[in-house]
Amino acid sequence: MRTTSAGVVRIATKGPGDVSGLMSMIDSGAIDPREILAILGKTEGNGGVNDFTREYAVAALCTALAPRLALTPHEVEQRIAFVMSGGTEGVLSPHITVFTRREVEGRPALLSVKRLSIGIAQTRDFLPEELGRTAQIVETAEAVKAAMKDAGILDPADVHFVQIKCPLLTSDRVEAASARGNKTVTTSAYNSMAYSRGASALGVAVALGEIAPDVRDEHVLRRYDLFSTVASTSAGIELMHNVVIVLGNSASSVSAFEIGHAVMDDAIDATAVSAALQSVGLGIASQAQAGRELVNIFAKAEASPDGTVRSFRHTMLEDTDISSTRHARAAVGGLIAGLAGTSAVYVSGGAEHQGPPGGGPVAAIARLSD
Amino acid sequence: MRTTSAGVVRIATKGPGDVSGLMSMIDSGAIDPREILAILGKTEGNGGVNDFTREYAVAALCTALAPRLALTPHEVEQRIAFVMSGGTEGVLSPHITVFTRREVEGRPALLSVKRLSIGIAQTRDFLPEELGRTAQIVETAEAVKAAMKDAGILDPADVHFVQIKCPLLTSDRVEAASARGNKTVTTSAYNSMAYSRGASALGVAVALGEIAPDVRDEHVLRRYDLFSTVASTSAGIELMHNVVIVLGNSASSVSAFEIGHAVMDDAIDATAVSAALQSVGLGIASQAQAGRELVNIFAKAEASPDGTVRSFRHTMLEDTDISSTRHARAAVGGLIAGLAGTSAVYVSGGAEHQGPPGGGPVAAIARLSD
Amino acid sequence: MRTTSAGVVRIATKGPGDVSGLMSMIDSGAIDPREILAILGKTEGNGGVNDFTREYAVAALCTALAPRLALTPHEVEQRIAFVMSGGTEGVLSPHITVFTRREVEGRPALLSVKRLSIGIAQTRDFLPEELGRTAQIVETAEAVKAAMKDAGILDPADVHFVQIKCPLLTSDRVEAASARGNKTVTTSAYNSMAYSRGASALGVAVALGEIAPDVRDEHVLRRYDLFSTVASTSAGIELMHNVVIVLGNSASSVSAFEIGHAVMDDAIDATAVSAALQSVGLGIASQAQAGRELVNIFAKAEASPDGTVRSFRHTMLEDTDISSTRHARAAVGGLIAGLAGTSAVYVSGGAEHQGPPGGGPVAAIARLSD
Amino acid sequence: MRTTSAGVVRIATKGPGDVSGLMSMIDSGAIDPREILAILGKTEGNGGVNDFTREYAVAALCTALAPRLALTPHEVEQRIAFVMSGGTEGVLSPHITVFTRREVEGRPALLSVKRLSIGIAQTRDFLPEELGRTAQIVETAEAVKAAMKDAGILDPADVHFVQIKCPLLTSDRVEAASARGNKTVTTSAYNSMAYSRGASALGVAVALGEIAPDVRDEHVLRRYDLFSTVASTSAGIELMHNVVIVLGNSASSVSAFEIGHAVMDDAIDATAVSAALQSVGLGIASQAQAGRELVNIFAKAEASPDGTVRSFRHTMLEDTDISSTRHARAAVGGLIAGLAGTSAVYVSGGAEHQGPPGGGPVAAIARLSD
Repeated sequence: MRTTSAGVVRIATKGPGDVSGLMSMIDSGAIDPREILAILGKTEGNGGVNDFTREYAVAALCTALAPRLALTPHEVEQRIAFVMSGGTEGVLSPHITVFTRREVEGRPALLSVKRLSIGIAQTRDFLPEELGRTAQIVETAEAVKAAMKDAGILDPADVHFVQIKCPLLTSDRVEAASARGNKTVTTSAYNSMAYSRGASALGVAVALGEIAPDVRDEHVLRRYDLFSTVASTSAGIELMHNVVIVLGNSASSVSAFEIGHAVMDDAIDATAVSAALQSVGLGIASQAQAGRELVNIFAKAEASPDGTVRSFRHTMLEDTDISSTRHARAAVGGLIAGLAGTSAVYVSGGAEHQGPPGGGPVAAIARLSD
Repeated sequence: MRTTSAGVVRIATKGPGDVSGLMSMIDSGAIDPREILAILGKTEGNGGVNDFTREYAVAALCTALAPRLALTPHEVEQRIAFVMSGGTEGVLSPHITVFTRREVEGRPALLSVKRLSIGIAQTRDFLPEELGRTAQIVETAEAVKAAMKDAGILDPADVHFVQIKCPLLTSDRVEAASARGNKTVTTSAYNSMAYSRGASALGVAVALGEIAPDVRDEHVLRRYDLFSTVASTSAGIELMHNVVIVLGNSASSVSAFEIGHAVMDDAIDATAVSAALQSVGLGIASQAQAGRELVNIFAKAEASPDGTVRSFRHTMLEDTDISSTRHARAAVGGLIAGLAGTSAVYVSGGAEHQGPPGGGPVAAIARLSD
Repeated sequence: MRTTSAGVVRIATKGPGDVSGLMSMIDSGAIDPREILAILGKTEGNGGVNDFTREYAVAALCTALAPRLALTPHEVEQRIAFVMSGGTEGVLSPHITVFTRREVEGRPALLSVKRLSIGIAQTRDFLPEELGRTAQIVETAEAVKAAMKDAGILDPADVHFVQIKCPLLTSDRVEAASARGNKTVTTSAYNSMAYSRGASALGVAVALGEIAPDVRDEHVLRRYDLFSTVASTSAGIELMHNVVIVLGNSASSVSAFEIGHAVMDDAIDATAVSAALQSVGLGIASQAQAGRELVNIFAKAEASPDGTVRSFRHTMLEDTDISSTRHARAAVGGLIAGLAGTSAVYVSGGAEHQGPPGGGPVAAIARLSD
Repeated sequence: MRTTSAGVVRIATKGPGDVSGLMSMIDSGAIDPREILAILGKTEGNGGVNDFTREYAVAALCTALAPRLALTPHEVEQRIAFVMSGGTEGVLSPHITVFTRREVEGRPALLSVKRLSIGIAQTRDFLPEELGRTAQIVETAEAVKAAMKDAGILDPADVHFVQIKCPLLTSDRVEAASARGNKTVTTSAYNSMAYSRGASALGVAVALGEIAPDVRDEHVLRRYDLFSTVASTSAGIELMHNVVIVLGNSASSVSAFEIGHAVMDDAIDATAVSAALQSVGLGIASQAQAGRELVNIFAKAEASPDGTVRSFRHTMLEDTDISSTRHARAAVGGLIAGLAGTSAVYVSGGAEHQGPPGGGPVAAIARLSD
């Protein structure tokens, strides 16, 4: 087994088209563009169907990286896994997190401690009618296993965050399925985002053994007791396949970073956020910890489907002015930013089958200065 | 000096017109309607100019209380101070907090400990052109002093929360001023809410000696270093005067409740929220405290005017889809709900001159079971 | 057959709680409150699930009318059919249209011309799981026939507008059905509004013979070729049954008003709007017509489900910031207001099975001065 | 004087990043990219401060055109005048209108009829504190005159549409001015768009002699009786100078197109829209006209500042959920689309000093097939 070193940098952006921060780090040699494996970003659109800040950010990054990699922009998009999560409601601050990986030679195959490791894989393109259904679950589960292997992670317990980028339905796609005589799981673009996120998350749960593999079409968005504690899925208009990024700790990594996670039971679960920080040796509200520094925190948020938070009614699901995903990101973002002591955190909306109903996974990455 | 006993009850509501919870408590004898002094509520509108849930809630409460008080609905509205803050973004849960007060006879005039006490006062009606200007500041300061006296609070340091309900401008009101040859401070209804809240808060600061009394028109919404640490002001379309409610601890109170506060330096100041809880003997995230129980927490939230939170950019002020007050309530509401362990908390938007720029006061009331 | 006289008055409102215009007309004797049969209003909320301006307007009207009718507010709500359509996007102006009816004695049973006549009926309460399904269709069809009879209209061709107020699903109602082991047609409150409106419209089409009576559950929101050309249905949270108001011309009416209608084939069908005006002898853009005056125009609007208007793409269905019903009301409202020469028109959103996909009925009422 | 031929093509887009329609026409030879002078587009963002679809569309067009023009994307942006107006509310359909111009040799210097001609000019960069003030007015007036000259238009009466792209304020820009000790006209980004649009429109009015040249700072957004009947101004975050495009008819043009205009007195002025169509020989609702075909219609829309449309109240200015510019575009777009018979029309929001208060210019371009 090869030994790798994973790197993570969080870079603030001034707008969805702003690539200056990343380009500076490449110019200064702080980042080698050839080592970039994935870029996760928070962009400032509405996070819904018509959020064009995601594709704009990806286009800007691909155009800027192309000459540095001697590739066309399209080839850059194929090479690097881009996941842009729209929606920086409340205090959330637009930024990107750049993940790099390089192979390290002349080291023992297995180290005494496990450190951050990253793996990537992707599924085939889906048909519109496959979204939100078993095909998407099964293909995603395979891709998660492939990504774990790519990351050198053997034990599912060492997987702390699985980020997936998945497709959504548009009027065109629904019609294409219909023209073939097939019905899509929904005809609403907005609703399709939930189905696609949900099926993708169930795929993660299957891959990691969190649920039995016999999950079926009718469980998606219904059996909310079936979920993954580490899945984070985002739907976007710009692709028709799933991209899977596995983040975990591996004995074959010599990274300076460590990842851990916890599960928020509901949207106000401060205890879980604290536990995620503690899992990588950090305290709350940026309290100084010798030798450790927070790089970023990654979480999923959603409006509890039962309409309540600890028995008090919330109004997120019945608001026609603001979508519930925006409400949930704002609230959970406020809590996490408060406990993490920074507002440039990755909180993504729509946590169907990602953590328990109304809750969601929360992962933290720390840099070790030793 | 008379001895009083102040009571506080938080009641969940099923909608802006729902009065059933309060009526049940009156029917059961838990609340004597004649002792109701003030009702603070969170209603589920947008909290902006066209938020009709506030006036609807007040109308419903007045209509329901009228027969119990043998008054007309209009007389009820004159007798009880109603402050409805619109906007239950994110996890925030619609509810009302009912404050009662009764006189207690046969007790020592001054007690050894200070307990919750409430006082009320109001200004004269303002002209539209007085809103957001010195007249509103000066009149409010007088009303705060009157409310302190009404509460039996002698020391400004014992004042922990001053809730004010103040007017806003509408097209009609701007035109009325214009017809008299006078210009209002702004012609935008939305912007007028900020001016009115700001001037009212400066009035509190003057009354409590937090700032010098020579504050002038041009300081409003400009000199953000001038602020009160206990003011909470909400603008509503339904009145033309300021209603002032002072909450503090008094040696002439035999209440079973205690109030304390802290000041959030920014929107993610978890430490301040913890301090507010601790000031009344409570821990974070609903950790059990012998003999003490949280009744409610009251806070103001706003988008930092400099566009950043701890040096990271926020997007609240440049969002044309969602007003910054909604963003701020959602985020701060998420943080406070997480630390308080309950989402039925009172977080109100628009914290101009209420706490430092981007921050705001946060007060907690605990019930003592001894 | 009795002879009746129907009256129609359009009254501008200053807010959802404003009843002053109607009260003035009652005070002056222009309206006899005992003759009020129905009040259709446009209120300025978002027209969605959390639009409380509808129930607030109804509550204010009932409270104000109660003493004039020597009834309780609740009894007023039972006696008069209130239909408040939320959403005054664009130029649309908040107003109510008050329909009155009185019996006239000593007239021939059948007159030589047909004039405006109004009839009312209502269904039983529905179970949540019946909404959007056959039960709602069948019951509505029966109620339409009853309302026609009440109006003295024998020929379906004389029916020009059928306004229905129907229920929607809330989290509570979905749960209640679920507790009985039944699934509702959707779990989304917002989506349930479309199902309820659609099934109600199909009920009208069945009653008037516009479609065959064998329409089934699976046709609702799918077979958009099945529709009524005169149905207008609005969903509201405040009831669990359908209220049906039939407007048409009858030979047993001596009203000073006449109604006609046309069908918009799409959202920009200016020709149909002109035709509706012409059907009652009016020209476009308020051109003077001897002896005839527009009272109001009533129309339904929706975003074309195929995503286009005359082959050009629209963006209404993929907008996460503004619901498509709001977009559609604004656009169709702009067109109708321009052609009618007044912005206080009744344009209601959500035209499922009300006119062809993307189009909708448009009816006009004129006052004859002869 | 040179003889030119102006061309105009309207091309539908599938999204803000879609350039395929234009590229096809270039590939087929229908458009020579070297002749492109200006591209006006409607993109599907919110049209407000955080509408990134405008800059995304420009970036996509520049990147796509660069190889065809042997320029860098940045050089393309300098060469072609791009004006993207955000907001396709209601039925409005995203599209671009491409304006081309080529010189024609061997023709008489002055022709017997006047045909479409286009001219372009731009101002210097403004300081943030100059926006919305006299400097912007004066510089714009100079640029309008330069653009008229560029278009070969001598008589101001032959100018039918002046499109201007102008800057807005951001937090950064306000702070930069403040750091120099200068105050900007407003600190709100959203409000700054109105000031910049207003001052630019006044510049047009000055240049064309529609108002006296002594207009001053304090008239901007106050003296609404001062306006241009042909100005159309759009604010965008992506520039700091004004770009001016003059469209009119010129005797030195051999174009196959003709332009005309009218002025809407209010947002429901159907008569003016008809007049604009008639000014280029067209009827309403796409009625066939021998030898003439509508290419596009260009209009400005705004919520009447006095809060009414023909004495009925509108709610656009007091809506905290949807900005008034979105409301106005939706309504006016609905009316114009209905009368023009197509929804791919250019309706832009914010008509300060562009036409009378609440109204705005409306121009039509027809293609002559003779």
